[in-house]
Amino acid sequence: MSEEEKEKYMDQITVKAETLIEALPYIRDFNNKIVVVKYGGSAMLDKKLEESVIKDVALLKLVGMRPIIVHGGGKEISKWIGKVGKETEFIEGFRKTDRETMEVAEMVLNRLNKYLVQMVEKIGVKAIGICGKDGGMLRVDKKMPNGKDIGFVGDIKHVNTEILETLLDNDYIPIIAPIGMDDAGETYNINADDAACAIAGAIKAEKLAFLTDVDGVCMNPDDSSSLISVLDLNEANKLIEAGVISGGMLPKVTNCINAVNAGVGRVHILDGRREHCLLLEFFTKKGIGTAIIGDDSGYYSNEIEQ
Amino acid sequence: MSEEEKEKYMDQITVKAETLIEALPYIRDFNNKIVVVKYGGSAMLDKKLEESVIKDVALLKLVGMRPIIVHGGGKEISKWIGKVGKETEFIEGFRKTDRETMEVAEMVLNRLNKYLVQMVEKIGVKAIGICGKDGGMLRVDKKMPNGKDIGFVGDIKHVNTEILETLLDNDYIPIIAPIGMDDAGETYNINADDAACAIAGAIKAEKLAFLTDVDGVCMNPDDSSSLISVLDLNEANKLIEAGVISGGMLPKVTNCINAVNAGVGRVHILDGRREHCLLLEFFTKKGIGTAIIGDDSGYYSNEIEQ
Amino acid sequence: MSEEEKEKYMDQITVKAETLIEALPYIRDFNNKIVVVKYGGSAMLDKKLEESVIKDVALLKLVGMRPIIVHGGGKEISKWIGKVGKETEFIEGFRKTDRETMEVAEMVLNRLNKYLVQMVEKIGVKAIGICGKDGGMLRVDKKMPNGKDIGFVGDIKHVNTEILETLLDNDYIPIIAPIGMDDAGETYNINADDAACAIAGAIKAEKLAFLTDVDGVCMNPDDSSSLISVLDLNEANKLIEAGVISGGMLPKVTNCINAVNAGVGRVHILDGRREHCLLLEFFTKKGIGTAIIGDDSGYYSNEIEQ
Amino acid sequence: MSEEEKEKYMDQITVKAETLIEALPYIRDFNNKIVVVKYGGSAMLDKKLEESVIKDVALLKLVGMRPIIVHGGGKEISKWIGKVGKETEFIEGFRKTDRETMEVAEMVLNRLNKYLVQMVEKIGVKAIGICGKDGGMLRVDKKMPNGKDIGFVGDIKHVNTEILETLLDNDYIPIIAPIGMDDAGETYNINADDAACAIAGAIKAEKLAFLTDVDGVCMNPDDSSSLISVLDLNEANKLIEAGVISGGMLPKVTNCINAVNAGVGRVHILDGRREHCLLLEFFTKKGIGTAIIGDDSGYYSNEIEQ
Amino acid sequence: MSEEEKEKYMDQITVKAETLIEALPYIRDFNNKIVVVKYGGSAMLDKKLEESVIKDVALLKLVGMRPIIVHGGGKEISKWIGKVGKETEFIEGFRKTDRETMEVAEMVLNRLNKYLVQMVEKIGVKAIGICGKDGGMLRVDKKMPNGKDIGFVGDIKHVNTEILETLLDNDYIPIIAPIGMDDAGETYNINADDAACAIAGAIKAEKLAFLTDVDGVCMNPDDSSSLISVLDLNEANKLIEAGVISGGMLPKVTNCINAVNAGVGRVHILDGRREHCLLLEFFTKKGIGTAIIGDDSGYYSNEIEQ
Amino acid sequence: MSEEEKEKYMDQITVKAETLIEALPYIRDFNNKIVVVKYGGSAMLDKKLEESVIKDVALLKLVGMRPIIVHGGGKEISKWIGKVGKETEFIEGFRKTDRETMEVAEMVLNRLNKYLVQMVEKIGVKAIGICGKDGGMLRVDKKMPNGKDIGFVGDIKHVNTEILETLLDNDYIPIIAPIGMDDAGETYNINADDAACAIAGAIKAEKLAFLTDVDGVCMNPDDSSSLISVLDLNEANKLIEAGVISGGMLPKVTNCINAVNAGVGRVHILDGRREHCLLLEFFTKKGIGTAIIGDDSGYYSNEIEQ
Repeated sequence: MSEEEKEKYMDQITVKAETLIEALPYIRDFNNKIVVVKYGGSAMLDKKLEESVIKDVALLKLVGMRPIIVHGGGKEISKWIGKVGKETEFIEGFRKTDRETMEVAEMVLNRLNKYLVQMVEKIGVKAIGICGKDGGMLRVDKKMPNGKDIGFVGDIKHVNTEILETLLDNDYIPIIAPIGMDDAGETYNINADDAACAIAGAIKAEKLAFLTDVDGVCMNPDDSSSLISVLDLNEANKLIEAGVISGGMLPKVTNCINAVNAGVGRVHILDGRREHCLLLEFFTKKGIGTAIIGDDSGYYSNEIEQ
Repeated sequence: MSEEEKEKYMDQITVKAETLIEALPYIRDFNNKIVVVKYGGSAMLDKKLEESVIKDVALLKLVGMRPIIVHGGGKEISKWIGKVGKETEFIEGFRKTDRETMEVAEMVLNRLNKYLVQMVEKIGVKAIGICGKDGGMLRVDKKMPNGKDIGFVGDIKHVNTEILETLLDNDYIPIIAPIGMDDAGETYNINADDAACAIAGAIKAEKLAFLTDVDGVCMNPDDSSSLISVLDLNEANKLIEAGVISGGMLPKVTNCINAVNAGVGRVHILDGRREHCLLLEFFTKKGIGTAIIGDDSGYYSNEIEQ
Repeated sequence: MSEEEKEKYMDQITVKAETLIEALPYIRDFNNKIVVVKYGGSAMLDKKLEESVIKDVALLKLVGMRPIIVHGGGKEISKWIGKVGKETEFIEGFRKTDRETMEVAEMVLNRLNKYLVQMVEKIGVKAIGICGKDGGMLRVDKKMPNGKDIGFVGDIKHVNTEILETLLDNDYIPIIAPIGMDDAGETYNINADDAACAIAGAIKAEKLAFLTDVDGVCMNPDDSSSLISVLDLNEANKLIEAGVISGGMLPKVTNCINAVNAGVGRVHILDGRREHCLLLEFFTKKGIGTAIIGDDSGYYSNEIEQ
Repeated sequence: MSEEEKEKYMDQITVKAETLIEALPYIRDFNNKIVVVKYGGSAMLDKKLEESVIKDVALLKLVGMRPIIVHGGGKEISKWIGKVGKETEFIEGFRKTDRETMEVAEMVLNRLNKYLVQMVEKIGVKAIGICGKDGGMLRVDKKMPNGKDIGFVGDIKHVNTEILETLLDNDYIPIIAPIGMDDAGETYNINADDAACAIAGAIKAEKLAFLTDVDGVCMNPDDSSSLISVLDLNEANKLIEAGVISGGMLPKVTNCINAVNAGVGRVHILDGRREHCLLLEFFTKKGIGTAIIGDDSGYYSNEIEQ
Repeated sequence: MSEEEKEKYMDQITVKAETLIEALPYIRDFNNKIVVVKYGGSAMLDKKLEESVIKDVALLKLVGMRPIIVHGGGKEISKWIGKVGKETEFIEGFRKTDRETMEVAEMVLNRLNKYLVQMVEKIGVKAIGICGKDGGMLRVDKKMPNGKDIGFVGDIKHVNTEILETLLDNDYIPIIAPIGMDDAGETYNINADDAACAIAGAIKAEKLAFLTDVDGVCMNPDDSSSLISVLDLNEANKLIEAGVISGGMLPKVTNCINAVNAGVGRVHILDGRREHCLLLEFFTKKGIGTAIIGDDSGYYSNEIEQ
Repeated sequence: MSEEEKEKYMDQITVKAETLIEALPYIRDFNNKIVVVKYGGSAMLDKKLEESVIKDVALLKLVGMRPIIVHGGGKEISKWIGKVGKETEFIEGFRKTDRETMEVAEMVLNRLNKYLVQMVEKIGVKAIGICGKDGGMLRVDKKMPNGKDIGFVGDIKHVNTEILETLLDNDYIPIIAPIGMDDAGETYNINADDAACAIAGAIKAEKLAFLTDVDGVCMNPDDSSSLISVLDLNEANKLIEAGVISGGMLPKVTNCINAVNAGVGRVHILDGRREHCLLLEFFTKKGIGTAIIGDDSGYYSNEIEQ
């Protein structure tokens, strides 16, 4: 080894030691904690990103966390609705979901669901794919935007976490398709972001992470270096009032705020296009996205108690 | 009440008391025992029979048994393959299952699966719908009839019962779609009768019941009064040799024999077209179908020990 | 089988299925529930009825209930008091129980007690015979009717249920002779109906059943078809005020009311002369005797929850 | 305090300290150990001795041992048989026990049994009185001395210890009347010494103590100072051969030898006429009676391990 | 045996029986109870007394109590400070403890501590030697008598009993050197009496025993026959006010009063120069020293409940 | 952020992600595993290295491993032996350890022991300092090199791991001073490397790490780039025969071989002068020292199972 190589090697060793010292206390803190990952967007369409997400989730499980995946599948549904020769009607910006559309959606989402199970099982970690009808997990009411009937689209009114607890206690990763049942036993489609929020809140998850197609919340959306690492509820509300958080980011942040208010410890908006974004966000001090928290009082010390 | 009414009432009371005295020891014997119900055929196509089967299974659960449902869905698959405009090719009598056919089959079976979950949940009993990929339950090899490749049709080579035990221990009725995974992680379709047999054998079920479209095994197939209530392995084999069991009944009985040899206590061939056939078979001395057992040495006494 | 036989067979099958569907939800509801049976009267003097009662109680145990038997023995006591050449004196309608009478009563009741143990053990169910002195179960004060001393006749002032819980938890049927101890350690005779009430109330039994020599409570005592199946406390009190419940039935119903007020779920007055009266009362909707309940708000649905 | 008083006080203190140092290791060694006490003879007929025995047994329980009492009652049975005007016939030296004699014996023994329960309960320790029919504990064959039928006298052929274990585990002192049941469910009388031996052997008791009317085994029966404190099986057999052990002592010692061979740790022959004989035998080095042991290899060190 | 010998033997037997009857209820009452023994003074300097104390503590453990030893070591510390050539300075009557003195004290106390462990282990009982730094057991503040800095001498401000509970639950005798740590992690010396009091109070010990060089509290200090066996808090305070308790006895009794107020059941001042003083105090009615109790309401009955 | 900064940041992020992906499977594999760290040499004399070692051990505990520290203290012992004015004699290369030397050694080692406890407790992790006398952990024979008596120097003949298991199960880090007891209860000094080996072998540790003053085993001792990362027993023996392993490295490697043969999973020779050497060795693929293993068959995959 030349002197230069040696030096480079020592630098690398030093970064490794620092990374470990940085990460280990989080690993302790997160032991047995529940993390809900909303999986969707670009990270679901690219084979390499898909593998990176699945591997990250499996690693979270391996080091003692209890992950839950909630997934969407809108693009795939549209594809199959086309295949069976149906047209789609929009009401108040929502796709009207008649019984046949619901039937196709349920078929597509359940297959996608089992596909993700397969991905996790292939790397040796236990997974089970369920929807909100299993164990009566998601009970919904019919969504009526502006009082209009848009078919079988549901608003969650109750989450029965019993089935999730059984699966988590037995070391399975639950993978959830966003489908629910109303009091009459009818099947409904649910928005995946809403499902993830409701589930994380009901089960008092430590973390809820949204894999999105943006870096996180930025002071200036065009400058990724203006990314905000941590936002407390107070600051988040101020940025909304000031118009800094707006457009497509507004409903996402609103969802995060609701989840924190429902008892989730920390909600993360991550760029799902970046490989291993979950590990980097959870196990480094600075993280790589934006975390929304209840208050800014230090939450995790990331230092061994002195 | 007239004297005649009184007498009729007393008769009825007497039958009730006898039925209870007949049934209660079975209920004790079957407490905590696992029963696998293969659900298919006519019982799956008629709304009223469907309700009767679901109610019976729920009652079995309520009195302490641990039921598992394995279902088929061939007719529904054919319907949707037609809908997406595909033709079906047959090889050696099997439908060739290419990747797209498999995709449709998986969608259809999983939806059907969740529909059955919904039926059970609606009457207040907990159920979870899974396929053989969940928890790595069903591992298959490619089926090669006469060495020919018929696509994604699998032979089960291993059943991992861990997920079933978790669900049963937590009071869920597992409802299983017959889909598996090979060592490379590919998805395969499985014959539902085979899946029910393999699962019942692996989990050492007390009972395996096939809901069929016949009365059971008859000495004379045209005379339902020649129905045989109990057959031991020895007798079954003799009837096969003698040609009494033949035609469509032959593979069914062969399946039953295999299941008994694999450790299932008693395998029942029932007429799924008769309402409450499961209750009548399990909780009366004579039953209403044919039971195949390991040997004829008394098995259940149906008498309180004297 | 002729057409007529077939039809009759099918009718019978139908009644059986209905009986099972009627009974199974009760079996679930009563699982692990405690039922106290006061055993006495004609049912104790006829060999066949005795066997029917013992078999019913054993079956209740087999399907998961936790029965307790409290028995009397007045006739047998009288017989032995005669044998040893004693005369009996009556005060205020009570038999005066001097020390020697008490000694004979204790001998007789304990032997009877062990005889019942023997009956239950013979059909393969575990039983233990105890009296109120064992484990300090029944603590009494001296009964003083109109301030007169009638000897060793006791009023229960405390029930220590610890010994019963130990026996029930270990799957024994406790069989109890109505004998107790006062604070000074003296032995007392107790009325068996009172003992059954006190024990059922103290252990918060689900059910208390009195085997009597009448059908139950009838609007017209001479017409058994005027039997009332279910009475709530309110109605019972009204019928007492109205004089419908009177005579020998009055103290029985008063006892039932007290038991319900002490926390027993449902108290049954049954005709012990009818075979299998316990099974028919507990596992059919209509029952065959009169049940006294706290209120009439539906108590058991006897329907699987919809 | 005078010098003399002081000295006496100091002497007394010294004996107390020595007694404690002597006793404490035994208390440790005997913790949770089962001791069967055969209670009969003079100790049962004298009020003061009765109290001393009951108090000793209660103290054994209090310091952590698990005592079981087996009692006789021959004299009381004879008294009541006389009362009801029966004569007794003897065959081969045994009292012929016809059905009515058995009935009286059962009544008397069960009442005596509950009387002992009462004695123990009065000093605040939990007791339950059972006979060999409870929990199917003692199963017998008919005894046929020289092939002659002497009625309902039984030889124990099986001890079911389940009920004893339940009672001991729940801190009750089981008090046992020597009555059993044959395979046909008939009731039999059993010799109390035999019952104590069979029970101690079956439950692998640490100790079995016979309260008798002699000091123990003496080299010279007329000289109580020739008492033998400890005898191993070998020595015992030699003394029998040499005729030193003979007469009424012979069957007692034979019984002891059988018990040791059946797995009882140590069998004690004690003088029940001496107050607190159980405490003095168990908690002092020399003891006050004769102990029969398996071999003489030091069994208890009675010294804290050095 | 002569008549005289016999009589003497019988007397001795009688004392033994009485001692046992006196002691056994205490043994029951003290089962699993914690007793803290402050070991110091003459009993620590004499080889024979040392053995007697260690043996007593081991016996307390053997019969089911849970002893803790807290020891001092002042004389040994002085010896070693001399050996390393240091002088000692006194401030306000306290030895000034600079860092080097503390270092020597820690070395000496820890060695002494392990020596006691060795003594207990040698007689076959499990022991572990710890100081207040282990498991963060003793947290101190700097002691500032009259505002003066006397170095590393600490006042206990918190006792973390977790480590003690772990050791006791696993059947170890904890042996404790009186050393603690302040919030900055500095090491401090602690007065052993204070440490014993604080520990006994924090762990809610049943008993705290001080081995001293006096008989106990006497009405007349020069007359050991004026010893007071039991003092309640009220009486103790009166004797202090009256000047009967004064001099060196005053701080001891004050310590006892504090311990009782902190929740210790009974605090004993014993003469450590008397062999087996712990056994005699704990297991006889009169005891041999002075016990300080919360109130005089009978505390232990020393009688089996009647 | 400039482009260059961004690139550097991304590089750093990439190393971090890689380090985590590399480390996480080890963290899973090592969960609940025992690791014995022999702490001595330079790492014990430098304040900064001391802190690094203590922090590493605390982190190992935090992420779920169960560390045990065994420490030496030769230099400190020599210092204090000088302080008390003693000379040291050497026999066969060993320091002669007379009783006074042993006394000083015990004092010094125990104080050092509690100092390490203090260091660990200060960073909020639970620790207990024990020596081989506590709980009878280390039983020794006198070491007799070439048959010569060198005083109180011991060879371990038995390790009682009970105390270690209790402490580990209760989440304490045991910190061990290498002192033991012979059968007669005498105190002996033990070589710390030997103690670490014996303890790791007895408790079947997953890992044993020696903190030394060399890089590890090098093919060429003068070229640290010739370091061998992993050696199986076979290779190690060959290198010894070939003379590559020789000098001071020889006894170390021999010790490692013995430990592996005694059941330790993997023994590590690390350079204690390198900060965080424990983390880098355990949680990176290449490690930074030399690991001796039983065979080279892949041991840890460091890959999620595929």
